[in-house]
This record gives sequence, C-alpha cells and structure tokens, in this order.
Amino acid sequence: MAKKGIMKVGIMRISELGGEFALIRRLAEKQSINDPSIVKSIGDDCAVIDNGKEEYLLITADMIVENDHFNTRWYTPDQIGRKLVECNVSDIVSMGGWPKYGIVSMSIKKETELEFIDGLYNGIYQAASKHGFYVVGGDTAHGTEMVFNMTIIGYVKKNLLRTRSMALVGDLICVTGRLGGSKAGLMMLSNGYNEHIDEHLNPVSRTRAEGEAIARYANAMIDVSDGLGSEVAHICEESGVGARIYKENIPLSKNALAASEILSSSPYDYALYGGEDFEIVFTIPENKIEALKRDFYDFTVVGKIVDESEGKSIIDDGKEMPIGSGFDHFL
Amino acid sequence: MAKKGIMKVGIMRISELGGEFALIRRLAEKQSINDPSIVKSIGDDCAVIDNGKEEYLLITADMIVENDHFNTRWYTPDQIGRKLVECNVSDIVSMGGWPKYGIVSMSIKKETELEFIDGLYNGIYQAASKHGFYVVGGDTAHGTEMVFNMTIIGYVKKNLLRTRSMALVGDLICVTGRLGGSKAGLMMLSNGYNEHIDEHLNPVSRTRAEGEAIARYANAMIDVSDGLGSEVAHICEESGVGARIYKENIPLSKNALAASEILSSSPYDYALYGGEDFEIVFTIPENKIEALKRDFYDFTVVGKIVDESEGKSIIDDGKEMPIGSGFDHFL
Repeated sequence: MAKKGIMKVGIMRISELGGEFALIRRLAEKQSINDPSIVKSIGDDCAVIDNGKEEYLLITADMIVENDHFNTRWYTPDQIGRKLVECNVSDIVSMGGWPKYGIVSMSIKKETELEFIDGLYNGIYQAASKHGFYVVGGDTAHGTEMVFNMTIIGYVKKNLLRTRSMALVGDLICVTGRLGGSKAGLMMLSNGYNEHIDEHLNPVSRTRAEGEAIARYANAMIDVSDGLGSEVAHICEESGVGARIYKENIPLSKNALAASEILSSSPYDYALYGGEDFEIVFTIPENKIEALKRDFYDFTVVGKIVDESEGKSIIDDGKEMPIGSGFDHFL
Repeated sequence: MAKKGIMKVGIMRISELGGEFALIRRLAEKQSINDPSIVKSIGDDCAVIDNGKEEYLLITADMIVENDHFNTRWYTPDQIGRKLVECNVSDIVSMGGWPKYGIVSMSIKKETELEFIDGLYNGIYQAASKHGFYVVGGDTAHGTEMVFNMTIIGYVKKNLLRTRSMALVGDLICVTGRLGGSKAGLMMLSNGYNEHIDEHLNPVSRTRAEGEAIARYANAMIDVSDGLGSEVAHICEESGVGARIYKENIPLSKNALAASEILSSSPYDYALYGGEDFEIVFTIPENKIEALKRDFYDFTVVGKIVDESEGKSIIDDGKEMPIGSGFDHFL
C-alpha cells in the first residue's frame, strides 16, 4: 500500500486541478505562441486571426457527447444537429462576427441507423442555412457513444471584434433575452416531466445581425454557455475588473419560473449557474444604452462593472454574495 | 413480429448503405452549396476556400477514438497527441499546402489523469511545432471513452493546389516512401508482439516542403489514409479515369515485410488496404518525373492512369485483379 502511495505521487485528476477552465489555462500556458497573425488564441470564445484582410478570421469548436450534452431519449436527431450548430454559432456571434464555414466530425456507433444520421444532418443543415453558412467537410469515426464536434470558421469586421477582456469600470452589465430556460428544461426532463423543456431541447443562438448591433456599442461580449454568473466572472478575470449583479434584475424565462415552481428550486440558480442559454452578456457605457436600444432592444441591465479591488458579487435584497462558478463538466 | 417487420421499413445501418464513403457522399448531397468562395467541400482531403487572397484556405478535420484509432495499452499519451496532429497535417500537405492553425476538441473521462492530458498536449505541441503551426483553441467535454478531434486551417498557393480529381490518362501513379508499416504494427500488437510496431505508434506525415515539391509537378494528389488501393480508387472515381497498379512495384516497409513473415500474411495487403501510412499517392506526367527527382526523390512509380473504360485493377504476376477497398470503419 505504501508503495502504491509513492507511485501515485504526481497523479492528479482534472477536478483536483480546479476543473475545465483551470485545465484550459494550463494547456494554453504550455505553448508559447510566436505568430503575429494570432490575435487571440485559447481562452476566448473564438480564436482571432489577422490574415491581412479587412475582417479577422474567427475559429471556434464545440464538442457534444451523448449522455452528457444530449441523449436519444429526450432529443430527436434533428434537435441534436441543431444544438450542435447553435452552440457553435453563439460563440461566433458573441464576438461580433458571423459564421461562414462549418466542419463536422462525428463518432457514431456501428449500430447507428442511417435514419438517425439523416435526421442529425437535416438539423445541422437547417440551422446552418438559417445562420447563412455551409458545412464544407468533416470526418466520421465510430465508438461506443456518439460524439459530435463542429468547428466553425467565421469573420468579424475588425472594428466590431468584442472579447471578454474589453470591459471597463463603470460599464453596465447587460444580458439579451431571458435566462434559465435551458437548465429548467434539463431539470424537468431529469425529474420525469415533459413540459417547460423547449429551451433545453431547442436552444437558439442570437444572430449575426443581433451580435453586430450589440458590438457597435458594447465593450466586452461573451455568450452564456455556463450561466450568467460564470460569464460575468470570465469578463472580470480577463478584463481585470470587478462586478455587481443585481439579482432582482436578472430576466428569467417563463419556463425557468414555471419549472422552478414545480421543482421547488430557484430560477435564479438556473439563470446564474445553468448555462446553455446562448444569450449574450455584454458590458456597455451607460451613455450608449439609448443608442443601442434603437438597433436592438431585447436586453436587460443586470449589473455594473466596478474596480477589481471591489470583487465580484451578487446583490440580493441588499445582501452581497460572491459570484459562484457555472456548470463545469469536470467538477 | 410482423408488425415489428413493418416498423423496421426504412431503417438501415451504415454498413448496408456501403460504408463510410457512401455515407459521406449521401450527406454531401443533402446540401446544395451556393457560395462561390467554396472551391471544394465535403469529399476531398480538405475543404478549399477562396477568400480573395493569394492563397486558398484549406480546412480539414480528423477525429480519433479510443479503442478504435488508439488505446492506452499500446500508445503513450504523447504518441496519441502526435498521431492526432500527423494524420491531420497529412491531409493538408497532400493537397500541396501547409498547416497554419489547429483547434483541438477532446472528450475525456472524469477519471482521466492530468498526467495523461499533459502528455497528450506535449505530443500535440511538439508535432505542431515540427510542422510550423500553433493550436489556437478547442473545447473540452467528457464521456465514457476518449475522443480527440483536430481541425487544421492551412493555406495552399493557388497554383499548387492538388486534389484527387486532377489525374489525367497517361499519368504515372507514384507513392512516397514505403507502405504497409502502420498496418503491420497494428497486426503485430494485436497478436501480442512488441516489435515492428514503430510506424503504427509513430506515424509521420510528409512535410510542407515535400508536398509542395510534388505539387509543382504532379496532377492529382491524395494521402494514404486507407491504403494504396483505396486511394487510387478515390483518384479514379473523382478524376473519371481508370488505373493499373503493378503489385511488384509497390514499395514495402521493412516492418511490413518482417511482420508479414512472422504472421504468415501478405505485406501487399498491408500496403494496399491497411492505411494510416500517411504517405502521398500522386499522378504525374511521365516527362516530369526527372524534374521532380531533382527536388524530391523518395517515391516509387507503382502504376499508371488509363481510360475509365479500362477499369481499376492490380497487375500481379501478369494476372489482373480488381482493386479492393481500403479499411472502412463501418464495414
């Protein structure tokens, strides 16, 4: 036993390291990039490439795994395909850009039926068409569970590039749409219910037009992959600022409200730490709010950016609570 | 039972459709592309994009799955990482291009050790560095088996773009290096041996310089992912031509010869239908062979392109045999 203990020195699980984001940071630090065309690499929603054109190139990838991100009991093949596209497009749009080319890799099971693949691709092609791009390639493999990866290459006008690192002290923190619906649907399905599930099964990214409208006025932008709390925390870390979120201002989806009532849970937890709502969190100078509203109005002010020394917190009925982390696949 | 039979109408496995390539064709046909910037999409080693610059953009993806493409009994984490890079780079180089940006998505297990991921990324970064590019992003997820996907974005000089559809009747068919080593290693490992396995565990792509040298003289190019027979068949189908391969001319790797002796099998089968050798098959007018040899000499003439009406066959000791298919994950 002692020997086994010695052998185990240096062996560490990813959860002990601090989860997915700690892992990404660690891996990014192993590589020292010396290429002036790489404007942003590992650590934002997309990599940003300056290839000497009027626009930057954006590159992003998302991988979804059976029984983790989807399952075939709850989702139709078509819904899985659309989810794969929407979660990727959201990363592009939330940087002010638009998707242009998609690559799909899939690991399917030997027994996977053609009908399933046809349905999956119908969903992929429909969603890609809606967002104005084509699938130009990919790879097929097989395994014991289904895994789908999509890489999207897009563009962003140079002056509209928005990242999570561009927030300024004094900015208001805003979020598009209403939050918590995806997590609400997941909780309902997990508890055997079949209602208030739409946002979980049919998540929808904001569009290029909406992302560009916001980018014209906003400083920092990020999409809601892991919950409002997590995204605001990312903005703070990358921008070197602090934040206050006013809990009562958080816009909740109808399904989040209904589901939380049925399940006796807090809809704010769905909104803050649920994720996959694919809305956009952005920070914007107060004096630009009115101008933005003329172009795009489906957003809510939920907080403000403060000095880093003031930390990150949620104000709930006058009480201050620290912002927790979002959903982490490794914790 | 009769009812079940009726219910089953329309349900088809991918193997019944005709395997991976039939599936890819079917999925490609579902999408009608109307974007003049897309020069080549699904169906070649890379997608080819004309974004108005001097070079075309190349995009390719490869997904490798635990216990199908690799396992942790035979491979070190470092070797898995390098294999992921080399198999992708091979697709870029075999079109005359060079890799520029990589994106890595991984689905790992909750219990995956940090040491493994560190080793994997050491291999990825080393191989990427060797081929002159950086990893700029990715995604992490988890599942019950490990799956790694790499997408590479590269460039190719417009006049050097070579595809599988550019072969002309009368061209000689050539292949770089020596074939069969990867399959030989797989067979040895599968049979419990631990020798003659190097090309399986450490596959190496040709480099940009080699690919460009060939592209200056060749008409069609493709990399050996699925075996010489399969690659020549792809060239024939896409170029609308036929082919003769002279079996005795096929250059066999030393390990393929040694392994086939131990295992009492044919080294030519490894070369023709084994795959993952990541050499380049190309077709070239006879009068350009000498010029190519001045720039690059590590290749062998193995056959010639003939009229489509003459079919695709292998000449073995004067006898003509049809070219079979390469390895197919779904058959």
